[in-house]
Amino acid sequence: MSMRSYAPRDPHWETRVRESFAKQGAMASLGARITALNPGECTIELPFRPELSQQHGFFHAGILSAIADSAGGYAGYTLFPARTEVLTVEFKINFVAPAEGDALTASAHVIRAGRTLTVTSATVHVRRAGRDSLCALMQQTLIALSD
Amino acid sequence: MSMRSYAPRDPHWETRVRESFAKQGAMASLGARITALNPGECTIELPFRPELSQQHGFFHAGILSAIADSAGGYAGYTLFPARTEVLTVEFKINFVAPAEGDALTASAHVIRAGRTLTVTSATVHVRRAGRDSLCALMQQTLIALSD
Amino acid sequence: MSMRSYAPRDPHWETRVRESFAKQGAMASLGARITALNPGECTIELPFRPELSQQHGFFHAGILSAIADSAGGYAGYTLFPARTEVLTVEFKINFVAPAEGDALTASAHVIRAGRTLTVTSATVHVRRAGRDSLCALMQQTLIALSD
Amino acid sequence: MSMRSYAPRDPHWETRVRESFAKQGAMASLGARITALNPGECTIELPFRPELSQQHGFFHAGILSAIADSAGGYAGYTLFPARTEVLTVEFKINFVAPAEGDALTASAHVIRAGRTLTVTSATVHVRRAGRDSLCALMQQTLIALSD
Repeated sequence: MSMRSYAPRDPHWETRVRESFAKQGAMASLGARITALNPGECTIELPFRPELSQQHGFFHAGILSAIADSAGGYAGYTLFPARTEVLTVEFKINFVAPAEGDALTASAHVIRAGRTLTVTSATVHVRRAGRDSLCALMQQTLIALSD
Repeated sequence: MSMRSYAPRDPHWETRVRESFAKQGAMASLGARITALNPGECTIELPFRPELSQQHGFFHAGILSAIADSAGGYAGYTLFPARTEVLTVEFKINFVAPAEGDALTASAHVIRAGRTLTVTSATVHVRRAGRDSLCALMQQTLIALSD
Repeated sequence: MSMRSYAPRDPHWETRVRESFAKQGAMASLGARITALNPGECTIELPFRPELSQQHGFFHAGILSAIADSAGGYAGYTLFPARTEVLTVEFKINFVAPAEGDALTASAHVIRAGRTLTVTSATVHVRRAGRDSLCALMQQTLIALSD
Repeated sequence: MSMRSYAPRDPHWETRVRESFAKQGAMASLGARITALNPGECTIELPFRPELSQQHGFFHAGILSAIADSAGGYAGYTLFPARTEVLTVEFKINFVAPAEGDALTASAHVIRAGRTLTVTSATVHVRRAGRDSLCALMQQTLIALSD
């Protein structure tokens, strides 16, 4: 599953993506931000706070899912035409290790960009004592809707 | 897929589940609460706030996923033995309609309770103008860990 | 997740579905047949043969998936307009018990029928000593394509 | 999601995997064979026959799923200890392009090998006119059972 390089169809893709992300109240209230954005790729980081925890004090699986979903959605949205919206059709996520640490990084890339549907894949890593380790793997389907 | 009735293996299942939920910083900070809890079943409600929104002002898909994941996790945890913990192995969620409304309700039930793994299914409904409509369907795997 | 009743949009839905199924070489070669077909619902049965087994002599998980996928696809296709085709976008399947027995029954129903995308859910039961027990649960997304 | 190299825990891993695959009646009757096998990796090929088709004459999505499931299962099983069995807990597969061609290749690798659960990822490519193109992406959970 080697990474392909993708050519965006909308010259203003970056502004469009960043404006959409800025409108996501959920990302702002969690404290998430985009730390890398390229055609077909998006990385979102989220520092730990107790407000994001599950019952053992680790990051909540649902919170991990929220940033993985947004990273995938915006990775796909970089390649959408102008005047389109992105919605998540579905995703599936495996949690492969407890998300115990200082910060999460969700990195998503496009697997296939279709006219209607786009498929992305994302990994989520947790940073502890300066070291990143894999804690989740996501596979997602997006749909492009006309504005 | 008719609902079976399940007999809990731990007489203190309800206290155990409610104490675990109370420790989830994420559920408290989102504003989610358990509104129904029975052996093999859990319902979680979440009123809308702009802090939970995606870019169109609807509930964020990741936030829906967070309460669906918790509802499934606690539906399963009602049936776990004493002195065990619950972790989500994976889940998959389909978003079938935009989650535009005043409140979300995630209702989960156990499909199969095994010694190690438990499978749950959950629906998420959104309430608008007093009417509930289906917005998501989730399928989840849980693992029981000894304390 | 109560069953809704669905009104087909194509008066010739049943002929269309049965003709499509008859063209699936894979279903014929496995020995699968449709045993119930209604708007929004499809049931497929498959008798056991050693040619369908995994390493322990039970039905192979992939074979279960094949009939669950077809049952879901045709449940959805009953509700498609005339002159459309159905393709599977994705599915997810949990295997909740070993599929040891004489026959499999995959029963699927439509969760939501959209213009472009349709979501279905299916259960697979295995019959042993005259008794059916649940062995898998599937959640699926379909797309309607114009002929 | 870079590939890690994995050290097998059972010196006889290759014999164990090949003997298990040989017992899968389903793989033999489909005509599938293992074409690459390394610790944490397995590739399975399947030539086209009309008996494997869906209604348009392409490979059936369920057949794709069957070989992706087996490739993932045996990629994981290479790393299992001696005297264990492998079962699929669940998988999720996205079909990103029609599987029209002469042969399928499912290539799986282990994402995380745990004591009880193992997570794998697989791609399926279809060969047409001598060129391979991606047609499906799978994510899978396996469980190790003592013999």
